[in-house]
Amino acid sequence: MAADDKRGETPIQIEGAERAGRCVLVCEHASNALPEPWGDLGLSGAQRAAHIAWDPGALGLARALAMQLDAPLASACQSRLIYDLNRPPHHSGAMPTRSETTDIPGNQALSAQDRLARTVALYLPFHAQLRALIARKLARGTQPVLITVHSFTPVYFGQPRSVELGVIHDADPALAQGVLQEAQTQTNLDTRLNDPYSAADGVTHTLALQATPMGLPHVMLELRNDLIADEDAQIAMAATLAPVLRAAIARLSQQTGEAA
Amino acid sequence: MAADDKRGETPIQIEGAERAGRCVLVCEHASNALPEPWGDLGLSGAQRAAHIAWDPGALGLARALAMQLDAPLASACQSRLIYDLNRPPHHSGAMPTRSETTDIPGNQALSAQDRLARTVALYLPFHAQLRALIARKLARGTQPVLITVHSFTPVYFGQPRSVELGVIHDADPALAQGVLQEAQTQTNLDTRLNDPYSAADGVTHTLALQATPMGLPHVMLELRNDLIADEDAQIAMAATLAPVLRAAIARLSQQTGEAA
Repeated sequence: MAADDKRGETPIQIEGAERAGRCVLVCEHASNALPEPWGDLGLSGAQRAAHIAWDPGALGLARALAMQLDAPLASACQSRLIYDLNRPPHHSGAMPTRSETTDIPGNQALSAQDRLARTVALYLPFHAQLRALIARKLARGTQPVLITVHSFTPVYFGQPRSVELGVIHDADPALAQGVLQEAQTQTNLDTRLNDPYSAADGVTHTLALQATPMGLPHVMLELRNDLIADEDAQIAMAATLAPVLRAAIARLSQQTGEAA
Repeated sequence: MAADDKRGETPIQIEGAERAGRCVLVCEHASNALPEPWGDLGLSGAQRAAHIAWDPGALGLARALAMQLDAPLASACQSRLIYDLNRPPHHSGAMPTRSETTDIPGNQALSAQDRLARTVALYLPFHAQLRALIARKLARGTQPVLITVHSFTPVYFGQPRSVELGVIHDADPALAQGVLQEAQTQTNLDTRLNDPYSAADGVTHTLALQATPMGLPHVMLELRNDLIADEDAQIAMAATLAPVLRAAIARLSQQTGEAA
């Protein structure tokens, strides 16, 4: 992690807020930090390092992509097992009692007060600050493009997954369709639309909260985490994906007649 | 206004935050206050008192309804001519240069910096605090019902309007349809769905921002302002509408099998 990294310390880290590009990148599952007052939730070190606690590789990819696109990056500083910022407070996945095959001991008997405290400490400030980042661009006359960056595990409930890049949308499919087409043309990645998850699985909450009400073009990128396992792979993947995203955004701008 | 009223002082006033009812009421156009640093925007006293600056009667109605429903009420403390909290920052109506037939001198040549300052001072804190009010209920296990309260002018661009109660929805029409049916059964009000405005006119931004991403039942009530011109009329209208809303919410709960 970078020397100035704030994992575990604040609910959100915003890097490059002044960057002038049109995209805003978000990484809700950037961190596996389990700081006080929540602590380790009763998990072993191996469990805390696994994909249940975060999206391995997603932050490194998002950072490299943010540099390529001259975009600000908003990322989480705590594990999604404390609060999954891509879920609303009443969702069973916001503070999950079980993730894939692992019970989360520290989430078994949360009181309403516990749920409220995590919501106030993590969810509300993360989304308020992300909203402010987006609204500042809108007030200045730029329509941002919201891109959320995730990773998924190559094997899930014992089943290998062959998809390498999932391209997921909330209400407006336009940018996701463009990214799918460009990725299939420009790359060798096994790329699929709304796979391995889709809005119907509740995975587009950040897009629904931050992009759809503002009418913003948006896409959620899901990378299979074995493809972004180290910094070199993350930088290479960002170099592959940045032209895909630029072309898809340009295609969208041509369709709507806007300036790219 | 109440002795503890904060019109002109803060971006949002929340009354009855501790009230235990399921509804959350919102009045985005509660005030015609034009405080510093914005001042009167070059408008006359008559213009500042007119519907272009606020929704006359809406706050009094919303307060009386909030008492009837044991609901918290979030209301604006500045005129919508400074920032219309029911519009996103990039919308031409957020800081309008003209409203119906009146030019707004102080909004004619806003810089990006001016727009940003109003967005940061009014829009962001209003919606962050409303989001927090809603999220607190969600985290505690209550699904709120969001009700926004507005008024419209009896004559618009010279045309009289016969509709008395407009019932408007964002993505989910269920509660609005129930309110329409109950109002038509229980009252003599000329009640219409998505009239005199609808989501297509961009008037459901608060619902789109606060209710739809959370899957909350929601409705926007638009009262013709001659029907709520003084406190007695506002209290009487609240007494008419509260049973309509209760019945519509109960109907919704029966449909979905939830507790009312």
